[in-house]
Amino acid sequence: MAKRPSEFALIAKVFAPLATSPGAFDLRDDAAVLPAREGCDLVVTTDALVEGVHFLASDPPGTVAKKALRVNLSDLAAKGAEPVGYLLALSLPERVDEAWLESFAQGLGDDQAEFNVSLLGGDTTATPGPLTLAITAMGHVPTGGMIRRAGAVAGDAVFISGTIGDGGGGLAVLKGDGERLDAREREELVARYRTPPPRLALGQALRGVASAALDVSDGLIADLAHITEVSGVRIVVEVEQVPYSQALRALWGDTREGRIRAVTSGDDYEIAFTARSEAAVLAAARRSGVPVTRIGWVEAGSGVALLDADGREIPLSHAGFTHF
Amino acid sequence: MAKRPSEFALIAKVFAPLATSPGAFDLRDDAAVLPAREGCDLVVTTDALVEGVHFLASDPPGTVAKKALRVNLSDLAAKGAEPVGYLLALSLPERVDEAWLESFAQGLGDDQAEFNVSLLGGDTTATPGPLTLAITAMGHVPTGGMIRRAGAVAGDAVFISGTIGDGGGGLAVLKGDGERLDAREREELVARYRTPPPRLALGQALRGVASAALDVSDGLIADLAHITEVSGVRIVVEVEQVPYSQALRALWGDTREGRIRAVTSGDDYEIAFTARSEAAVLAAARRSGVPVTRIGWVEAGSGVALLDADGREIPLSHAGFTHF
Repeated sequence: MAKRPSEFALIAKVFAPLATSPGAFDLRDDAAVLPAREGCDLVVTTDALVEGVHFLASDPPGTVAKKALRVNLSDLAAKGAEPVGYLLALSLPERVDEAWLESFAQGLGDDQAEFNVSLLGGDTTATPGPLTLAITAMGHVPTGGMIRRAGAVAGDAVFISGTIGDGGGGLAVLKGDGERLDAREREELVARYRTPPPRLALGQALRGVASAALDVSDGLIADLAHITEVSGVRIVVEVEQVPYSQALRALWGDTREGRIRAVTSGDDYEIAFTARSEAAVLAAARRSGVPVTRIGWVEAGSGVALLDADGREIPLSHAGFTHF
Repeated sequence: MAKRPSEFALIAKVFAPLATSPGAFDLRDDAAVLPAREGCDLVVTTDALVEGVHFLASDPPGTVAKKALRVNLSDLAAKGAEPVGYLLALSLPERVDEAWLESFAQGLGDDQAEFNVSLLGGDTTATPGPLTLAITAMGHVPTGGMIRRAGAVAGDAVFISGTIGDGGGGLAVLKGDGERLDAREREELVARYRTPPPRLALGQALRGVASAALDVSDGLIADLAHITEVSGVRIVVEVEQVPYSQALRALWGDTREGRIRAVTSGDDYEIAFTARSEAAVLAAARRSGVPVTRIGWVEAGSGVALLDADGREIPLSHAGFTHF
């Protein structure tokens, strides 16, 4: 397709410095080696991002790279895993040049240093379509210790890390909303959309504490529904208990409608989880330095109910965002 | 985007039966668990396929699925690994319906049974572009036992499994060549393009025997060049020693030109390797039931030389096919 340096020369130059693990062989082999870690299971997950679907063509290449890595690290975080490395499959349209790739690799490199992971392998190909990336991330948990979606039981409390709705708010700002916000607020929301922080320290601190957990990617209510399905329980969320950032309240209003929008918008990448002991949760939150808020409880039944300040159930026309 | 059953309902129905490993949790979690295997390293590799680049829009969904899995299993084979599972990131254009997905999943299921692997996780998303798949495959080798690209030394012989050029020949047939061939010959070549057999038994038998190995995806000469670069040696191939199928000779002619075309065309997915002991190689070939042919030797120097029947070097205008 496009006339560019060969796949091999390009990979060697731009991506090889990211292969910091000895088992990645500087990307000069067909495969990488990942030695087993004594007493640990490997946790593996994959997430694909498509330009125009999961990120905007106008997003800087460095933040596209970071988002692709972070949404995968977020899955590992929710499972209590310590990330070790990742593989990257990259399908590039013709317009992508070496400068783009260098910025992209710079973003990956920054996040590799921050989250202590190595690129283990990759594949680069041309595409006549939009830029598409798939990352497969791997991490370790003590044997048998992965936090599952199954495990929530009636009587558990429901918690969320950080604040909810900021990712969706950031997307709205990028699409032209947010005239009422000041520059700092707009930036804060856009950063949450483009570079959500994976809650790795919290996830690891929640091993043996959380009864069930997942990361919120499609919207708080939609994702909690996955816990209810797999655990066979009902979850009740009090919309007034859910934490919203000041910037998001400025964007969508400090109103019932604004809060409903927040709990049904996507791209949060916070950890939603259930636990029996609130004291143990607060200790884990303190250890990890990630704020955690109790937002509801688990009871017998099925589905997710969202209650208003008066304890009345709020009917939801759509529970969350799906990319499909 | 397209109005279809939600991502979650669809995954549950079509792909969950492929998650045969207990650690895949029927795909009802954020991640899968892969327990460590005692005394083994994990080998990981990823390859992406784009419609119109790596397969044709007219290819049956079942063979698209099989090719995506097999090109990854082929990497594991060349490294001496025993495959255990894979993750699938699937970006689907609007026209893809449930019938397509069912055929696709059927192809995966057939190959899972044949090669003893489980789907461990996946991600499905919509795309406005061509169908794009990325598979990450994992397998085990005894600790430290992965066969590398590095390791070839002067004095080793060079070998290839199966026959060379059939994948490229199959693509040529699908593009309208092959009028001289009978239906069986055309079918044979097309099958090699659409569903190349990963040489897993041979790869495992070559542990401790091969000094260097890789799978041939971009063309025999281009891929051998990777061994020379990483091992720091020169490889000499005698074009008359390279094995060609009867069907391919019927397609491209039993001529010098036909043979040059074969060694520079892609999509073979045979294992090219170097070894000191021809006797040990022949024993491994017998054990695995995969035919192996000696096609040249390793010497001091750099690059790959292709010799004709008279021992004269054949100048090559392009060494192989690159998808980029």
